[in-house]
This record gives sequence, C-alpha cells and structure tokens, in this order.
Amino acid sequence: MKIKIINPNTTQAFTDALQRLADGVARPDAEILAVSPASGPSAIESFYDEALAVPGVLEEIRKGDQEQDVDAYVLACFGDPGLYAARELTDKPVLGIAEAAFHMAAMVSACFSVVTTSPRVRFMTEHLVSRYGFDEQCKKIRTTPIQVLDLANSPDTAIAKVIAECLKARDEDKAEAIVLGCAGMSQYRTRIEAEIGIPVIDGTVAAVKLCEALVDMQLSTSKVLTFNWPKPGMARGMQADIKSIA
Amino acid sequence: MKIKIINPNTTQAFTDALQRLADGVARPDAEILAVSPASGPSAIESFYDEALAVPGVLEEIRKGDQEQDVDAYVLACFGDPGLYAARELTDKPVLGIAEAAFHMAAMVSACFSVVTTSPRVRFMTEHLVSRYGFDEQCKKIRTTPIQVLDLANSPDTAIAKVIAECLKARDEDKAEAIVLGCAGMSQYRTRIEAEIGIPVIDGTVAAVKLCEALVDMQLSTSKVLTFNWPKPGMARGMQADIKSIA
Amino acid sequence: MKIKIINPNTTQAFTDALQRLADGVARPDAEILAVSPASGPSAIESFYDEALAVPGVLEEIRKGDQEQDVDAYVLACFGDPGLYAARELTDKPVLGIAEAAFHMAAMVSACFSVVTTSPRVRFMTEHLVSRYGFDEQCKKIRTTPIQVLDLANSPDTAIAKVIAECLKARDEDKAEAIVLGCAGMSQYRTRIEAEIGIPVIDGTVAAVKLCEALVDMQLSTSKVLTFNWPKPGMARGMQADIKSIA
Amino acid sequence: MKIKIINPNTTQAFTDALQRLADGVARPDAEILAVSPASGPSAIESFYDEALAVPGVLEEIRKGDQEQDVDAYVLACFGDPGLYAARELTDKPVLGIAEAAFHMAAMVSACFSVVTTSPRVRFMTEHLVSRYGFDEQCKKIRTTPIQVLDLANSPDTAIAKVIAECLKARDEDKAEAIVLGCAGMSQYRTRIEAEIGIPVIDGTVAAVKLCEALVDMQLSTSKVLTFNWPKPGMARGMQADIKSIA
Amino acid sequence: MKIKIINPNTTQAFTDALQRLADGVARPDAEILAVSPASGPSAIESFYDEALAVPGVLEEIRKGDQEQDVDAYVLACFGDPGLYAARELTDKPVLGIAEAAFHMAAMVSACFSVVTTSPRVRFMTEHLVSRYGFDEQCKKIRTTPIQVLDLANSPDTAIAKVIAECLKARDEDKAEAIVLGCAGMSQYRTRIEAEIGIPVIDGTVAAVKLCEALVDMQLSTSKVLTFNWPKPGMARGMQADIKSIA
Amino acid sequence: MKIKIINPNTTQAFTDALQRLADGVARPDAEILAVSPASGPSAIESFYDEALAVPGVLEEIRKGDQEQDVDAYVLACFGDPGLYAARELTDKPVLGIAEAAFHMAAMVSACFSVVTTSPRVRFMTEHLVSRYGFDEQCKKIRTTPIQVLDLANSPDTAIAKVIAECLKARDEDKAEAIVLGCAGMSQYRTRIEAEIGIPVIDGTVAAVKLCEALVDMQLSTSKVLTFNWPKPGMARGMQADIKSIA
Repeated sequence: MKIKIINPNTTQAFTDALQRLADGVARPDAEILAVSPASGPSAIESFYDEALAVPGVLEEIRKGDQEQDVDAYVLACFGDPGLYAARELTDKPVLGIAEAAFHMAAMVSACFSVVTTSPRVRFMTEHLVSRYGFDEQCKKIRTTPIQVLDLANSPDTAIAKVIAECLKARDEDKAEAIVLGCAGMSQYRTRIEAEIGIPVIDGTVAAVKLCEALVDMQLSTSKVLTFNWPKPGMARGMQADIKSIA
Repeated sequence: MKIKIINPNTTQAFTDALQRLADGVARPDAEILAVSPASGPSAIESFYDEALAVPGVLEEIRKGDQEQDVDAYVLACFGDPGLYAARELTDKPVLGIAEAAFHMAAMVSACFSVVTTSPRVRFMTEHLVSRYGFDEQCKKIRTTPIQVLDLANSPDTAIAKVIAECLKARDEDKAEAIVLGCAGMSQYRTRIEAEIGIPVIDGTVAAVKLCEALVDMQLSTSKVLTFNWPKPGMARGMQADIKSIA
Repeated sequence: MKIKIINPNTTQAFTDALQRLADGVARPDAEILAVSPASGPSAIESFYDEALAVPGVLEEIRKGDQEQDVDAYVLACFGDPGLYAARELTDKPVLGIAEAAFHMAAMVSACFSVVTTSPRVRFMTEHLVSRYGFDEQCKKIRTTPIQVLDLANSPDTAIAKVIAECLKARDEDKAEAIVLGCAGMSQYRTRIEAEIGIPVIDGTVAAVKLCEALVDMQLSTSKVLTFNWPKPGMARGMQADIKSIA
Repeated sequence: MKIKIINPNTTQAFTDALQRLADGVARPDAEILAVSPASGPSAIESFYDEALAVPGVLEEIRKGDQEQDVDAYVLACFGDPGLYAARELTDKPVLGIAEAAFHMAAMVSACFSVVTTSPRVRFMTEHLVSRYGFDEQCKKIRTTPIQVLDLANSPDTAIAKVIAECLKARDEDKAEAIVLGCAGMSQYRTRIEAEIGIPVIDGTVAAVKLCEALVDMQLSTSKVLTFNWPKPGMARGMQADIKSIA
Repeated sequence: MKIKIINPNTTQAFTDALQRLADGVARPDAEILAVSPASGPSAIESFYDEALAVPGVLEEIRKGDQEQDVDAYVLACFGDPGLYAARELTDKPVLGIAEAAFHMAAMVSACFSVVTTSPRVRFMTEHLVSRYGFDEQCKKIRTTPIQVLDLANSPDTAIAKVIAECLKARDEDKAEAIVLGCAGMSQYRTRIEAEIGIPVIDGTVAAVKLCEALVDMQLSTSKVLTFNWPKPGMARGMQADIKSIA
Repeated sequence: MKIKIINPNTTQAFTDALQRLADGVARPDAEILAVSPASGPSAIESFYDEALAVPGVLEEIRKGDQEQDVDAYVLACFGDPGLYAARELTDKPVLGIAEAAFHMAAMVSACFSVVTTSPRVRFMTEHLVSRYGFDEQCKKIRTTPIQVLDLANSPDTAIAKVIAECLKARDEDKAEAIVLGCAGMSQYRTRIEAEIGIPVIDGTVAAVKLCEALVDMQLSTSKVLTFNWPKPGMARGMQADIKSIA
C-alpha cells in the first residue's frame, strides 16, 4: 500500500525527517511518500498560515488520487489544516496528526497533556481537543517559548525546552502520557520519552500506523453526506480544478 | 464609518442584494461596501468550497485595510469562512454572520433554531453553534432541500421551502426565534418573519449593526496573542502578500 | 430613540456616573435615561440583595413602558437581576450588562477573564457565564478584595486593586480581553484599559450600543412562549400592578 | 424537629394539601408547618410571578427563624424561587422541591423525565435541571396543557392529562422514573404511580424527608462565603428587614 | 427497618467503626448491620481491587435479601463498587457512599472539594463525580499521600494529612464544604470538621440517612429496564447463584 | 506478534467466530488466540453479568502474560468489561471493542450511530460513549429487540432486525457510519454494510488492527499512576492471585 504524508509547510528539512521517520515504522508492505506543497508558508503558526497552506494540501490530495495511486493520506501539521476539505476530495482515508495522536493517547493512558510550540497556537489546539472529543482526557495544553523553525535550526536548544515542559506536564498536570504538538518534534520522540519516562505519542507515526490499519480494514471516509465529493464547476475565475489555485 | 461586507462567493446577485439590504439598515453615517472576491466558488456548500474561498476573502481584507480605509468587516457566508485568519490580518473588527446572528438571537429569545440550506452543511453548522457557545440556546439545525443558488435562480420556490421549515422549527422544536443559515436568504427575512410570526434573525444585518456598535465603542479584536499579526515572509513560492494567491 | 438604564441599586452616585458615561457613547439620536428604583439595596452583593432589588427594577420597566415611551432597557448590575421577568413585562428589548459584555467580548477576543468585586459573587457570576454559554471563552472569574461601595467611596484605591487583578488575568490566565464585573467600574474602563493594554469591556456601554442596534433592527424579545406577558390578576393581597410592591 | 413548608403562592388549597401530605409522611418526631405568604401571586407560571413571590418567601424564612424555631425549610414550588437568597437568610437547611426531587430520582433510577404544567415553564425547568447537574439523567421535560390552578379547580381532568404525559415519558422517552414538576401535583403522586407502574417522585415529600435527614446529621448550609448572611442596612427607603417588603 | 452496610473490603476494623458510627446516627427504629464479605481485598485502591471485591458485595446483597430481611443497602467504599449490579440483584434501595455524599454536599453548599486517599484513585473519583452529574459543584479532587490502611494503622498521622489537605481545599479551591473520599475516614468526620470550620460530609452517614428517607417514602430502584433482575441460569461452570463466586 | 482476544462470555460459538474473523484480517505476522474464560455468564446483558465475567477476564490476562507470551489483548464484549482492571494487570496494550470501534468510526465519518442488542444495555452504552468522549460524534444509540444469544441461535432473523435498525440510523439519525454494538454481530459486518451502503465498524476487527499498530509503535498503557500494577497480597480468604477467583 502507498501512504502519502503531506507536510503542509514548505520546509523540506521537516519533510525529509518525516520520510525517514515513517520509513522506520511502516510495515514492509507500506510505501511512504512524504511531500511538501510547491508553495505555501514555511511554517504554520497562525490561522492565516493555515489558510494559505490549505490549497497546496488539497492539490497534493488531488495529485495523490489522480497521479500517484495513493491508498491513504496523513496531514502532518498539528492543526490538521484542511482535513475536512481533503476528506471531500478523495475517497481514501485521510488522517490529521493531531487527531491520530489524541486517539492513540486515549487508548494507552488515563490522561495526557499536549506539549506544543509557541503560546499563540493554544487557542487553535484547544479547539482541536474539543472538536475531537478529548476535553476530559487532555489535562492541559502546554506551550513552549519556541517557534516551529527553531526545531529545524537549533534542535538541541528547542528540544531541551520541550523536555522541560514535558516534565512539568508529568509532575504538575499529573499527565500520564504526552502528545507532541508539532510535526517538527516527531523525530525527537524517542529522545524525549527516554528523558521523561512516560509514553510520548507522535502524531505522524500514529497516523501512519492508523492508515495501515484502515487500509487493511478497507475502511474509508463515509461519503454519504458531509464528506461527499465537492460539486464540480463551482469556481469562477479559477481553473476547473484545485491545481490552479496552489 | 465604512463597513465592508465580503460575500465569499462570486455570485454577484447575492452581493448586490446584500448591498441593498445593508444600505437599508445602516446608520446615515455608515457607508456600506459589498464585494465578492475576484475568484472563488460561486456558492459555498462544502469544506472544499470554503477552503477555496478563504484566500479571496483574505485578499479583500488586505485591500480593505491598505486601499479602502475600512473600519469594520462582515464575512457574509454562514460558515464564517476564514474568520480567525481575517482577524489576524487586520486590527479592525471582523464579524462572521453566523456568530452575529447567534449573539443577537440569544439576546432576544429563550431559544432558537437555525434554518439553513442543504443537509450537507449540518455538520459545519453544528460546529459553529458549538464553538461559539450556543449549544443550549440552539434547539435544532434544520436543513432544507435547496441549494444555495436556488435562492438566486428560483427564489419563490426556495423561500417557500424555507418557510415550511421555519414553521416546523416553531411548532415542533418550540423555537422562539429563527436564525437564517445562509446569506442568500438575507433579503427575504421580512417576508419570512411575516409568515411565521416569531423573530427572524439575519446575520448580515446583525453583523452590520454590531460593526457600527463596535466602531462606536472603539473596540476591536485583541491582538495580544491569538489574533496577532501573521509573520511576514513565511511564504515560499508565493508572492509576498496574500494578493498573489487569490 | 430612548434607552432607559436601570441601576438596580439605590446609590445615586453610580446612577449619575452611568448617565454621564452613556451620554458620552450614545448616538446623537439616542436619549439616555438613567434611574435608580425608589427603594432597594444600596449595593447588590448577595442573592438576598438581588431578590430585594428586583421588584424595584420591574416597577421601572412598567413605568418605562407606560409613562416614558422607552424603546429599550439596560439592567445595569452585573448579576442581570430580574432580566427574564423584565422581558415578560415589556415587548421592548431588555439587556443585562453581564450578557452584553460577554457577547461583545466573545466577538473581539479569543478568550477573556472577568474581574469583579468581592469573592462572594463568584458563584453568581459562574452561573451567568454558564447560562449564557461562555464557559469556553471565559478563562477565569477573578474577584477583588473590594466591596461595591468602595468604588464610590474610595475609587482610587479600589481601581488600583482592580487593575492589579486585571494584570493577573492577562499574565496568568492568558486572557486576551477583560470583562469588568460591576457597573460601578464602568466609568473607569478607559483608565484600566490604558494600564493593561488589552481590550476592556464594560457591560453598560456594551448594552447601550446593543440596544441601539436592536432598536434599529426592530428586533425585540420573542413573546411567543417563555417571555410572554405575565397573567394579570395573579396577585392576592397586592395591588393590581407591580408598582405596589416596590 | 420543626419543618416549615413554604408554599410560595397564595392558593390556600395547595398549602392545605401540602400540610396533609407532609403530615402523612413525616416522622413522629417531626412537626410540619405549611404556610403561604401573606401576599404574592396565586400561582407561579412565569419569571415575573416568581420575582413577586420571593419577598414573601423570604419573610417566611425570617419569621421561621426569629419567631417559630424552625429547624429546616422546604420551598414548595417547582421553580425553587428564592432558594439561594433563603440560604443566606438562615443557617438552617433550605431545600427546593425541584432539587430534592431530582436528587431522589437520580438515586433510584437510571434516568427520569419531568412532567410539569404549561409549556411556558419549560425554559425555567431546563435551567434548574442543568444548574443542579442532572442534564444526563433527565431524559426530557414534558409539559402538559394545564395551568397550575387547574390542579385545584378541576383536578380529575388535570391529572388525567398529567397521567397521559407520564405514559409518554415512560414509553417514548424510556424514562425509568417520573419527577412531578409542580407542588400542585404532590397529592396525586400515589394515584399517578399506580397508573404508570414506575416510580413517581414528588418533590415536597422528598424535601421533607431530606430535611429530616439533614437535621439528624446536624448538616446545614455552608455559610463560609456564597451563602453568608446578607449585610444589614443595605436597604434605603425600605424598613430595616425583609418584613417590610412582603 | 433494617439497613445493611456492606464494607467491600475485608478489614474488620473499618467494618466495626462503620457499625459504631451508623449506630450513633441511625433513627431508633432503624437497625444497622455492618458486614464485610467473607473474601476479597483488604483495601480497595485500584480497579483490580474493585473487580475482586464486587462478587463478595453481590453475595452480601443476595444474603441480605434472601436471609436477612434487609430494607436498604449501603455500599461503604468511595468507588461505589458494584452499585449498578447490586441494584439489579435486589428491589430494595442501594446507595453508594460517594453518590450519597455528593448529593448531600450539593444541597448544603455552593461548591465542595473531595479529599481522598492516594493519587492513584483520582481518575476513578473523577469518573464518579462526572457520572453522577457533579462536575460543576465539585471544585477539585484532592488526594493525600496516604494509603487506605494507614487510616486503620496510624490514624493520627493519616488524619493530620487529611486535615492539611482539607485546609488547602478551603483556602485554595475556595471549597465551601468537604466530601471525605474514603469510608476509612468516616469516623473522623467530626474531628476534621472541628479543625476546618466548614461542613464535612461523610458518605456512610449520608447514605444511612438517605436510606431511612427512601424506605419511609417506599421509594426504591426502578426495575422497569436498566436495573431489572438479571436473567437466571446465564452462568456456565459456576453454581447457579452468586453465592458460589464469592 | 501474538494478540489474544478474550471473549468475556462462555459461548464458544462466538469465540470460534471471533477467531475466524480475526484470522481473516490479521497481518501475516500476527497470531490470534481467541478464548473464553473457564467460567462466567453465557452472555453479558446486565451489570450483574458484567461483574461476574470480569474475574474470568482478568485470569485470562494473567495467563496471557505469564504463560502465553501475549503482546496485546482485545476484550471482545461491547461493554469493555474489566478494561481498566486489565490495564493494571499487564503492561501490554489492552483494548475494549467499544472504544476501538468508536475511535475508528470517528476517523472515518462525520457522525455515527450505535446499533446494539436489547434496550436494557442502552444506559451502559451511553456511559461508554460519554466516558470515551464521543458524545458529539455519536448521534444515537439504537437498541434492537434481540438478545445476545439470538445472534448465535437464529442469526438470520436477528441480523434482519439489526439491518432494519441500521437503516433507521442512516435515514432518521442521518448517521454516516454504524458501530455494531455487540461482538456477536462481528461476523455479519460485511453483510450488513452491503445492505446499508455506509461504513459499518466492528469493534473486534478494529481492536485487532489497533493492537497491531500499538505493538509496532512499542506503545503501551502508561503505568505511571492510574494503571500501575495492583498491590500484591491484598486479598484475604482468596488465593494469592486472580486465578483462584475465576
């Protein structure tokens, strides 16, 4: 089976790291294809960034369905940008890494905290926790004084700050697991877990493994109503398909 | 003061109707500017449509701030597409018509129902009701077997169906007010209210009057954290500003 | 249009301040009439005070409708005492300042905290936040070690304490706006906002501007069921109208 | 011990029925004193009625404490009018019949429905259910096409309608117990239960038995903060105590 | 009437203390029978302990109904283990001490905190608070660094720790009452209350008094559906009744 | 890897069907071991049945860890009986089929309904939906007029009734997916899905695939607090380990 990981930002270092990470955990019969859109923001830290990233994400979905024979998709940004639109555009499973991480965390812990990047994303993250139904299991959303790109540019300093916050989550929130709130942290999961001694869940890996499970189960997005195909020909001043807007 | 109404779809008939409607209710000192983006979907009935409409909405915000001296913005689509991104891009008030309608309805009724277009938008609408805190006041979301464009193409038939659903809301849900769930219904508010005999709230008018109030109060979006300005220069392969993507 | 502000307590200094404040923000075509009931508590800091204040409030509603040609009412006490009874007694809009402040705060911020008077009112305030649907947007209710009348008797000391609490709301709760939880604080809004640098919402001003909006929209309380007129002649041993009990 | 039942309306037939009913269930060592206020509405079917009834209720609390040596109070109207104010005015237990009925119903059934009087009180009843924490256990609030006074004037017809609604609660809501939503129904509890075959809880009896339990346990309202004594001397233009306003 | 208190653990010292305590508060006409199962864990501090304790609890219910002519049952462990199964096995009232304590606390305070034993039981206790509908009234669940058996083995040290935590609940949570979260604390209720000066509710006493009330009211578990009798003969490889598994 | 499916009831026909079903979906490298406890109820349709089944479930966990080298466990009864106790008794992942089904359904549909067996289990199922956080995604719990054993004894009739209820879920609730609420329905999933045309999720298959994913991720229950190992030696009058009570 072929699983496509779409990193909604254009920072190739993250995309490469996700490819390596996923290659390491995927089953032998699963091929991983990690990509970034041709254009879009270099990191997603605001609703504006998210809005600009979505057209590129959707173009990658289209390409995946029409040109790449993809079996399942992972949106590798913790805000799950464009998740519902993507589910309309394909009949293959599409998972966001935030939802994947929350579901997995809920199955292996009594409660968890999220450790994410800058304070600005707290509101966005609270909405995801709430929308997906994890208000009770999620003890706290902890932000760190780092930017997404710090994880690429000065990873040691950034990860030290993440670990410091994870320890607070464990000791102050009494969180029994940690959800990493940024795809840029994915490759440091093992290191962080070793430091804090409780399960650390990374959404990218979680989503890849859930995609494998869904494909095996021949289970995909219900297209009966909400996520039905978009109506063609609605766009004026745009080309007929999503390709044109990315 | 100048209030800009952004109709996120490109159906000019709706935009013209919103201009007329708002002109009729705005205060003498308030100038209304109703626009559609240059490109985008002709109606918004899916998450995909919404995702494609947002860049055009943001471009209109940018233009409003940089070229048109706008004092407040109304996003005239009931899904409030791009609301949070728009709040980042300007320090003027920005109101979605769904939120505006819900707030007004909550102040004049014990409970209300929403009457909107096709069944497909129910999920989207439920999320708005919930996110804005109106789960308790909102009795039911009622969909009608019409498409958004039916309101432009065969308004009499379409409005008859809307009225039929409003009567059910009044008699079966025991709703004490109705929120119209589509900007395309705005111009028929008076007619619908006359038929059903309970308050009918249209979000476009509500949002315009709330904008007037906010501007008078010199009250605007808090930029201290969540809705702070987006970081410039994040886009690669895109022009420097949002203009390029619309 | 004529907007009547009913200060449910009998402290004339507050009533006068509300008159001046509202005169300063009302539109040229809106006349403000601020009153206190003839009798009642000098401040409202308990459920008992509230129960004693309500008959006087209702008498002012009756007088407003029958003798003063009022177009809309503001109940200027943060507990919104008698709000639902008042809505039964008139077919004009009636707004409490707590609800008005919450609605406005929700439209201009990602989240807010309430800063109010003595700890005793916390329970009462929590119920309002919850009843109106703002549990998620409201980060915290902060009480201050002041009594309502301190705001009239030693305003500088009292406001310094309010500001100190607002700073905690901003820095500890990460509130992005402040709702002032007492009509006695209304006149100090600008001063407080200048000190803390995030939007500060005062319910009295908010309610006045919302009343203007509702009157323009010809939108008033739905009388179809819950807020229908009270049945006459229910009172035994009381005079025929509310006047007698105030 | 002495338990005072305050019927907040002035319909003596109800008060007499409550006296007889409570005499029948009280323990030998418990004396029941059922009263109506000297003045107030003859029935409580609106927020306005409730507001007018509260001063009379409070006067009965004052009299109970100062003149009658009462050990515990029951507010025998399903809206629990003035409950929190009453708790401030005495350090004896005070129970509303709605809360008493809900608590008892929750301990003897998986879920229950409320069957009450006219549709108008639904909103008021929903708030009680929610405020007391019974949203999940309460399946539905069912109103009947009767007025409170119908229960005194034509009880057979009225009770037949109540029973019809109870049957719907049992068969359609799958309620496993019924809470009677009006003190005027109290005396018909046994008859209703015999007809429908599932437990029927009357709040007046429930509250009397809970008062007995609380008095035995020497457990009373916590006066540490919220329900502390009201401050004396707050009233201007009123006599020094509550007596004057009833 | 006869009330049977089932201490689900096998520590006879606790059972004896509960017998003395209940004898002291029961009405003259109520006989108390406190027992421990023949086998089971000596304390219940995990879900595993709870699972092992339940068969013994059910056997005591069976014996109470078939051999002891019991009128009502109290499950004297704060996790209310086996409550719903017990309600199926008898048509007499069955109360858990957690639910009894919460209901009583809600009727005498604006809000309360729970003070319980080791941190491990927090999750279990949160579920009870939530399931019974007390999320809003319960400010906080506070655990203490003690084990259940410390209350039997070194009560003075253990109770000192409980009191320290109660003081934090009063001063930091602003709790207005305390619910003791372990039957092992029941006998120290008066002492704790004397130290902290706000109402302290013990579930065992609360449940006994509620049982008296329910028996007087002839009110028992609704058997119409959820808590209907279990089907006989379902067990294979087990004796025909519950007796065999204890 | 070895995955042990524990069917908590003793009906071997169900256990055999689960073995065949799981063999059909498991990965080549996953060995499935489906078992029933030596003793326990033949079907689980009440809390009493559940209480009696749990000791046998726990014994199978113990045996799996100590004698069978199991890597992950599935509890194949829709009430997830003993789930939390099982998580204490092993450090391998343990999944209930209800939770597994809900998580999967939430990732592939906008909303779902549960179709389960007899009305009696509704209350139990509601608690699971709520405890796991799916109140919003789950539209309705639909019961059918069948007993669990009907699925073994007269499957065609029983499944016809299940399908009839699924159609109502699709057409009346507007559910976009179905969760089958009984392990006895697992083997009919494909047939049901073919009839109703929307995704049908069976918890047993879902749990097996999630176990595979968790084992690959080396992710297991956090033992840091809530699900820590039970304390040994707590049982008096029982043998030292769980074996003795099954």
